[in-house]
Amino acid sequence: MITGMLIDEASTRYRVEPGQVIDLNMLDSSDKGLWVSGVKAEHSDLLHEKLAELKALQNQLFAEGKHKVLVVIQAMDAGGKDGCAKKVFSSMDPQGVHVKAFKAPHEEELSYDFLWRIHKAVPQKGMIAVFNRSHYEDIIAVRVKRLFPEQVWKNRYRHVIDFEKMLADEGTKIVKIFLNISKEEQGERLQARLDDPAKLWKFEPEDLADRKRWGEFMEAYSDLLSRTSTDYAPWHIVPADRKWYRNLVVAQIMINALRELDMKFPEVKWKPEDMVIE
Amino acid sequence: MITGMLIDEASTRYRVEPGQVIDLNMLDSSDKGLWVSGVKAEHSDLLHEKLAELKALQNQLFAEGKHKVLVVIQAMDAGGKDGCAKKVFSSMDPQGVHVKAFKAPHEEELSYDFLWRIHKAVPQKGMIAVFNRSHYEDIIAVRVKRLFPEQVWKNRYRHVIDFEKMLADEGTKIVKIFLNISKEEQGERLQARLDDPAKLWKFEPEDLADRKRWGEFMEAYSDLLSRTSTDYAPWHIVPADRKWYRNLVVAQIMINALRELDMKFPEVKWKPEDMVIE
Repeated sequence: MITGMLIDEASTRYRVEPGQVIDLNMLDSSDKGLWVSGVKAEHSDLLHEKLAELKALQNQLFAEGKHKVLVVIQAMDAGGKDGCAKKVFSSMDPQGVHVKAFKAPHEEELSYDFLWRIHKAVPQKGMIAVFNRSHYEDIIAVRVKRLFPEQVWKNRYRHVIDFEKMLADEGTKIVKIFLNISKEEQGERLQARLDDPAKLWKFEPEDLADRKRWGEFMEAYSDLLSRTSTDYAPWHIVPADRKWYRNLVVAQIMINALRELDMKFPEVKWKPEDMVIE
Repeated sequence: MITGMLIDEASTRYRVEPGQVIDLNMLDSSDKGLWVSGVKAEHSDLLHEKLAELKALQNQLFAEGKHKVLVVIQAMDAGGKDGCAKKVFSSMDPQGVHVKAFKAPHEEELSYDFLWRIHKAVPQKGMIAVFNRSHYEDIIAVRVKRLFPEQVWKNRYRHVIDFEKMLADEGTKIVKIFLNISKEEQGERLQARLDDPAKLWKFEPEDLADRKRWGEFMEAYSDLLSRTSTDYAPWHIVPADRKWYRNLVVAQIMINALRELDMKFPEVKWKPEDMVIE
């Protein structure tokens, strides 16, 4: 399938190269550039295929018990973090995938350094940890909402890079994903939450205050993506206005990341034919 | 669908009543008593329905953020713990479900009481924690493999009951599931692991040693199930020779447990109509 081959390029198309300067205002959040067909059945079949491949790769990751995988997902409110976690990561064995949602730090957490609670949640061998929000909030939210002096969040660019370098050197594959939605799309999604009693609980009045600072957030995110994308922990800016395309791209990025690990099923130290089941 | 109504009774049919004396040798591990049809497409459609219902209930649990749910799964090797976790629990939002596999305790864990590592993994509000093996291994394995003196594991019957009572009083819904397979079925599944290079890693030569002590394990489990099923944390003995039936029954037990919580979407303290998205 041609579309299948095209989507394979997702990792490179949307990856932020180290040193690359990003201006989110210049990027098309409704891009579906890798997609040549408009037929819905086709992309849903393709997602199905991709998720099956991802599941097989994760199974091997778990079986081998050698590599650790950390996935960081950031986005504006209603950007699709939860949906993406549900759709892409629920395809895998829940035993091998832990999704951790980081909320605003509570008092005990704030009494430590900002990486303390993050470090406790990193993946062990064989596991995938998915961070729904992350240590990057401690730069973005702190900056835009002016929670701490400027020097605090500025220093953290360096600290997150150093921390991720340590994790990478110790055997962690790191994949960072920014789900890029437009202000218009966010407006529609927030309205949909207000209109649906079963979604109302996801709406928080504070989201509107953040929405008013959209421009500041875009600036903060642009800086962040420009400064913290590294070879060992690259950011991907995924066009996320279209949920189906976002899911395909994220699934593909995950597939490519796991493929790079060059995994093998572990060798056993005994001969299967010697095992007699009585 | 008649079969759909019948399967609703799963919780009561397979629940161990407090004080009930269990002899696993007398129970049919290939029972499909609730099932009146032999057509495969039908039970797979039904499972699909059940998983969709479970997903909706879990979504509400997470949204409400009020109740905690602890699921304990125990079984002999190859009894289907992993498969059950994959099939039934991967249908839900991974963000709200944490599957924790307990292996033989390592040195640090052994230097604490047996409930120390367990307590660290209990669910918080809104979450489902699934224990793949649990504190019950600290009775079963310790007894059959004679790891500690008899008095140690005998005392633990009381300790697990007390611990679970505390959890329940503090707002945790506890569901305990024993997947009951026959020795013949275990033999076939272990052989299947030996025959498939992609499953070989799941086979452990030590499993054969345990298999030789099948009778002792059945006795230990029978005692355990008889002594630790309570109103607030009942055991269910699920016939597990047929994977499709096991999945249906476990899904139904989960559905019934979540329904009992009488959940509501949280009320918001503002009026949706006052929220204007600009």
